Amino acid sequence: MRRLDAALEAELIAVADRLADAARSATLAHFRSGLDAENKETDRFDPVTVADRAAEDAMRAILAEARPQDAILGEERGSTAGTSGLTWVLDPIDGTRSYLAGTPTWGVLIAVADVQGPIYGLIDQPYVGERFAGGLGRAEMLGPQGQRGLKTRPARPLSECLIMSTFPEVGTEAEGTAFHRLARQCRLTRYGTDCYAYALIAAGQVDLVVEAGLQAYDVHAPIAVIEAAGGIVTDWQGRPAPQGGQILAAANASVHAAALEILNA
Amino acid sequence: MRRLDAALEAELIAVADRLADAARSATLAHFRSGLDAENKETDRFDPVTVADRAAEDAMRAILAEARPQDAILGEERGSTAGTSGLTWVLDPIDGTRSYLAGTPTWGVLIAVADVQGPIYGLIDQPYVGERFAGGLGRAEMLGPQGQRGLKTRPARPLSECLIMSTFPEVGTEAEGTAFHRLARQCRLTRYGTDCYAYALIAAGQVDLVVEAGLQAYDVHAPIAVIEAAGGIVTDWQGRPAPQGGQILAAANASVHAAALEILNA
Repeated sequence: MRRLDAALEAELIAVADRLADAARSATLAHFRSGLDAENKETDRFDPVTVADRAAEDAMRAILAEARPQDAILGEERGSTAGTSGLTWVLDPIDGTRSYLAGTPTWGVLIAVADVQGPIYGLIDQPYVGERFAGGLGRAEMLGPQGQRGLKTRPARPLSECLIMSTFPEVGTEAEGTAFHRLARQCRLTRYGTDCYAYALIAAGQVDLVVEAGLQAYDVHAPIAVIEAAGGIVTDWQGRPAPQGGQILAAANASVHAAALEILNA
Repeated sequence: MRRLDAALEAELIAVADRLADAARSATLAHFRSGLDAENKETDRFDPVTVADRAAEDAMRAILAEARPQDAILGEERGSTAGTSGLTWVLDPIDGTRSYLAGTPTWGVLIAVADVQGPIYGLIDQPYVGERFAGGLGRAEMLGPQGQRGLKTRPARPLSECLIMSTFPEVGTEAEGTAFHRLARQCRLTRYGTDCYAYALIAAGQVDLVVEAGLQAYDVHAPIAVIEAAGGIVTDWQGRPAPQGGQILAAANASVHAAALEILNA
């Protein structure tokens, strides 16, 4: 796990919590309120809610005051340059369709990264009141059952593994075929989990999450949280994947290697 | 909505809350604790956890003291005869696979029924701390955002509807074909929601839930909660379905009729 100067670490951790708190208020203000969505793209269903933009704006306002030297990459408002070498990578609502449906598996994703990739990340589920944190010496969650350490599951055969993805139609047709070839080897496949699936890998509940077509802001925080808890996140060729695309997140090296082989069979 | 003597209503509502409180404690004691499941059936994955049995036993102990005159039908411990004409229908953990995966979409289902069907029901999500209640003059939920009334969505074309089911493989091959014929007409399909999907219909977030192969204890509480909130639950032929089987739950009569037609096209 990468470490920074102690004072800087403490500051980044505190700022990240402030961002997550602000995003909680902004997103919960509209959750299950009957809000209608507008369509961001015309060719597929990708709603953007008022809450999504309000949450990112709230986080950007905190950063402008607390860390003006850092760059920002946000899902809703794009890129803002910085001078520190650090970039805050923000997805105010990952899982907007889950948000609109009222299910509690969407989340706020917050990460701090440099040119080498994510350094620290938070996956926050505002409605449940859960925050998963990883990096800078931390791997822990705070939720309805209090504070707990995060630790991924030990190695086991694929036939005993639990695999998750958000939709059964994973990416392109070829990507979907590869995914289902892997899922058929696993004990149980669950859909509909959005970023919550990555938190569950870190919490030791799930062995694999496989997705495609992701963006940098979708994966930065999950990478930080899962790697801090002992897991591995790469693309489907086993390479680092902070820019998104095809994502294979695994609880350990053994399951990761077995899944890579079947994805590329 | 069916009503009973006021004193009896108050007693049943209070007892149901006591059952749900007891099941919350019993289920949360083992949630995300790394508990392994045993397989109840050898031919498909249907885990039963220690928590499942502990929760039903805790509810039965309360009923033995508070309502010994009532019958009980429980998922784990079968039937107990009564003399009052009322039966408590209990599913201590609906969505055991969700429970094992750590997702917060499983629930405790509690209903009071007579020969005409469910009279009152609770859908409780212990980890989120949400309780959805319907029947005996009530249609309300208590959760992280406080107490709210339950009211299903108004009618809209299927092309604007949100449909849910637990798995993309819905029932038999023929049932799956009918489900996907309907799902293709809808705006968005979400999987992985277990009994939480029925709560979301009652809460006005979702238009349709379609499932097959359900048991009486899977549907009694959802029927009570959804009907109290203004929705409709039947089988795929439009008949009352308190015994389970193929289930079509809809937010209103218009969406219900449109879905029935496509399921049987």
